[in-house]
Amino acid sequence: MTSAALETKRQKTLPSEISLGQYLFERLKQVGVKTLFGVPGDYNLSLLDHIYEVEGMRWAGNANELNASYSTDGYSRINGFGAMVTTFGVGELSAVNGVAGSYAEHVGMIHIVGMPSVSSVQHKLLLHHTLGDSRFEVFQHMSKHISWKLAIIEDITSAPRIIDSLIRTGYLMKRPVYLGIPSNFFDETVESSLLHTPIDLALKPNDPDSEDQLVQEILKKIQEASNPILLVDACASRHDVRDLVKTFAKTTQFPVYTTPMGKSSFDEDDPRFGGVYVGMLSKPDVKEAVESGDLILSVGGLLSDFNTGSFSYNYHTTNVIEFHSDFCRIQNAVFEGVGMKFVLERLDTIIGNLSIPYTPTPIPASTQEYKTCLEQKSGPLTQEYLWKRLSYFLSSGDVIVTETGTSSFGITGTHFPSQTTAISQVLWGSIGFSLPAAAGASFALEEIDPARRVVLFIGDGSLQLTVQAISDICRWNLKPYLFVLNNNGYTIEKLIHGRHAQYNQIQSWDHAKMLELFHGDAAYENIRVSSIEELDTLFKDEAFNVPDKVRVIELMLDEFDAPENLILQAQRSEQLNAA
Amino acid sequence: MTSAALETKRQKTLPSEISLGQYLFERLKQVGVKTLFGVPGDYNLSLLDHIYEVEGMRWAGNANELNASYSTDGYSRINGFGAMVTTFGVGELSAVNGVAGSYAEHVGMIHIVGMPSVSSVQHKLLLHHTLGDSRFEVFQHMSKHISWKLAIIEDITSAPRIIDSLIRTGYLMKRPVYLGIPSNFFDETVESSLLHTPIDLALKPNDPDSEDQLVQEILKKIQEASNPILLVDACASRHDVRDLVKTFAKTTQFPVYTTPMGKSSFDEDDPRFGGVYVGMLSKPDVKEAVESGDLILSVGGLLSDFNTGSFSYNYHTTNVIEFHSDFCRIQNAVFEGVGMKFVLERLDTIIGNLSIPYTPTPIPASTQEYKTCLEQKSGPLTQEYLWKRLSYFLSSGDVIVTETGTSSFGITGTHFPSQTTAISQVLWGSIGFSLPAAAGASFALEEIDPARRVVLFIGDGSLQLTVQAISDICRWNLKPYLFVLNNNGYTIEKLIHGRHAQYNQIQSWDHAKMLELFHGDAAYENIRVSSIEELDTLFKDEAFNVPDKVRVIELMLDEFDAPENLILQAQRSEQLNAA
Repeated sequence: MTSAALETKRQKTLPSEISLGQYLFERLKQVGVKTLFGVPGDYNLSLLDHIYEVEGMRWAGNANELNASYSTDGYSRINGFGAMVTTFGVGELSAVNGVAGSYAEHVGMIHIVGMPSVSSVQHKLLLHHTLGDSRFEVFQHMSKHISWKLAIIEDITSAPRIIDSLIRTGYLMKRPVYLGIPSNFFDETVESSLLHTPIDLALKPNDPDSEDQLVQEILKKIQEASNPILLVDACASRHDVRDLVKTFAKTTQFPVYTTPMGKSSFDEDDPRFGGVYVGMLSKPDVKEAVESGDLILSVGGLLSDFNTGSFSYNYHTTNVIEFHSDFCRIQNAVFEGVGMKFVLERLDTIIGNLSIPYTPTPIPASTQEYKTCLEQKSGPLTQEYLWKRLSYFLSSGDVIVTETGTSSFGITGTHFPSQTTAISQVLWGSIGFSLPAAAGASFALEEIDPARRVVLFIGDGSLQLTVQAISDICRWNLKPYLFVLNNNGYTIEKLIHGRHAQYNQIQSWDHAKMLELFHGDAAYENIRVSSIEELDTLFKDEAFNVPDKVRVIELMLDEFDAPENLILQAQRSEQLNAA
Repeated sequence: MTSAALETKRQKTLPSEISLGQYLFERLKQVGVKTLFGVPGDYNLSLLDHIYEVEGMRWAGNANELNASYSTDGYSRINGFGAMVTTFGVGELSAVNGVAGSYAEHVGMIHIVGMPSVSSVQHKLLLHHTLGDSRFEVFQHMSKHISWKLAIIEDITSAPRIIDSLIRTGYLMKRPVYLGIPSNFFDETVESSLLHTPIDLALKPNDPDSEDQLVQEILKKIQEASNPILLVDACASRHDVRDLVKTFAKTTQFPVYTTPMGKSSFDEDDPRFGGVYVGMLSKPDVKEAVESGDLILSVGGLLSDFNTGSFSYNYHTTNVIEFHSDFCRIQNAVFEGVGMKFVLERLDTIIGNLSIPYTPTPIPASTQEYKTCLEQKSGPLTQEYLWKRLSYFLSSGDVIVTETGTSSFGITGTHFPSQTTAISQVLWGSIGFSLPAAAGASFALEEIDPARRVVLFIGDGSLQLTVQAISDICRWNLKPYLFVLNNNGYTIEKLIHGRHAQYNQIQSWDHAKMLELFHGDAAYENIRVSSIEELDTLFKDEAFNVPDKVRVIELMLDEFDAPENLILQAQRSEQLNAA
């Protein structure tokens, strides 16, 4: 029996009545959620009891709620969906920044909040974790703005339907949803047979007429083009069309470029991979290649400032087709409600049988630039060397997490092996995100394939916001590589404004003490790297390449050493802010 | 010249035009704010430049925004007002939990948010730190619910008036206010002569007729009573009527009781101090004494569950007079808009000349119970011993900060010397609050009187949420005593529900490594205490009594050892949640 079949069998042998709490967690298990993130609080404690009734489900127990929300995000980016439980008021508000990030970046998750009982609210009791003014509804109002859908359980009869609907919405839309459960409902019972019908996770088909028209027009454009370009962005990963794009590219031989947020959405070992396009911040040959295309097929675009070199896209053509999760567009013609997934599936079916008058264009030479690191043999460690050299340390299956800052900019210079996955919060850009996100990704990989590695790059400034995520990593004996770029403060901010300002300084930490503080029973290793030789030796060390413990690798870098694209971006940002 | 006079002189010699940024910080300086808390971000960087134009103003530079908000709260509780600067979206949302706490607990502060420029918003640019959907207004909508007043600068002409009005409101109402400034306004200029007229911080007088009627009725009640009781709660401290209560008590000789949140609002060395009243969780003699009163004068009451033994007040009389910051009440008669400050001032003026037929009642013997610790000479450290013995370590001027949990309950058993100040978040109860709040209080004391000490008690579970506040403490070489109660997890939660549940466990930390990680250049000391003898010796050590460095004192306690009042409260809480 497969594990899925065993799981179905287990759920069929449950008592006929189960608690609402168990129902919720069984439903989450069905959609692939095996780890629940969050912090206990007295309005959710008896909900948490029901986690242990679901075989194979675990409670991560994060050190704080912000970290829990970031971890949920990281978990979901690998696993397809995530879930977090917080307590009323104090707990949920600490998590809203992370939830807003998931909203901005199309990451599906459910935020479950244990609330005071219905009778406490009706009697307007002056409870702790309230504002003391009987406004019990304030916190859900706050979360409404950053939730695709929000619901509060009001009676047990409708509760299962509401839960199913929220999970379906969050899962399909890849956005956060919010579920409030008053504490009196946790132990009330519902029929377990409801679980026998899985939540329908199928995307709604497009309107056939609209889809037909769109597909015909796209095919016409393709046949007319002599220099078409595929540009793949973040939502290609989030809305799971990577494989469709791969097939399309293989059939057509069109060159494929990614954006910074789209990096890892296309196989960089593919001979038709052309590099990372970031408008004016692109490598010159990439810029020229993309902008001279006579048809741009843009898949899953999220055109934020940091993702576009501050809106410096400069195509010579207006011949652009956009593919999005919930609409498509050909130049000015919008096909509302026509989602890209079915459109790409149709294109993949048709395109092979079509005669396309296309002669593959050469790929920019800069895609091979990372190889120059092999010529550097010694000297102090630099960002330039680091990001190129990293190309050879990474291996298939790795999840590479980069913090907003020198890391998220630098990583565009790294060549990714096939089957790698990048996590970075380029749009929302909340510093501190990447460490708990790496923890969340580590939880997911442990469930999916423990041999795969999580490799994090974070600066010493960002690290300070969420450092206790390392405690969560140790608690569960997860084994990510935590590269800490020690460059003495907020380098990205210094480049934007206030190069020598006191406000861009940070307290100096002895990073080797972090794992000593947090490790508990976990095996760990501290490493410090200051030179090119040291990094090269480390990356070649076979033992180091095996993810058998949590490692902190402190990379000593100059305060103002930064990737070229970040330096240019910073100048553009300051101009925008002052305008 | 006094420092205030020097400061006025300095402000008068400023150039005739100053930047809006400088104007804001000069105004804050005028109301006593000398430290700004927060985290830099690229929508506030050029605002932060102006901090350094204001002599004697400093930028704390917290490790994260949640800690910044808690520190602002702690600072304000000592200093009367506080200020925090965050960046748009990501920064401000990380701080909302702390701001909501200030709202709930009547703590005055201004939350200043650097926003994208007006033109960026008008052009609906897809900027980083947005949700990617042009809804720039979402974050202010979220904060509106937890701000007494909120404003966004829209033009430079009205900006000074708006800033003045927000500061005045936050200062007088003792609540958070929110100021959004688009980045293009930071450097625009306003007339510095506006600073010559200080912000009017005088409370609005009560309606004379209402106040007259109220005072006459109170006096009549007092003359008729034979066993009147003064019950002093949190808002007596927050709205600054402690001295008025003291005078009133001295003149009348009425016995004075405090609530848990009101602790330190009345001098416990005063012979008329009767103890802490918490409804059914009170010491029996305190319960009897308060509930048998025939007139209850309740000052600044905030009657939340944890402050009242889950609403178990049980006065024999209905003869209750409530004094609040913005209304008063005699039984069912509400005097809307009649604030207690002027009423208490009038009472203090009149009461001495009035003949009151009152014979002072005896004070409950339990006020002396703390002395029993002197009989205990040895054995493992217990909560019982700790809180009593602490009475002798504390000294006049100390600020005692206690975390929600065993500490906030235990501290009610400690006798406070005169002139101490207690900080605890009994109503909002967000775990992790107390450590950054202690940092904030330390900043304030350094400015007001560096000889005074900050003494924190926090559990090992709560500590994990906000541990990087210790980095802020070290960065500024502050010298609080950080007592960490190591009782192996969330003891308060275990008592409420899930005594042995996995979700109430935490990762075990090596607490001695915290200061090693964070200390930078600061002097520090790690101490561990496991027994009664060790604590006694430590408290008697003269060197230890001098606050000349930051100290972490780890107190080893049994997992289920808890103050009796917490055990009872936990049982009541679980009943409420399940109801």
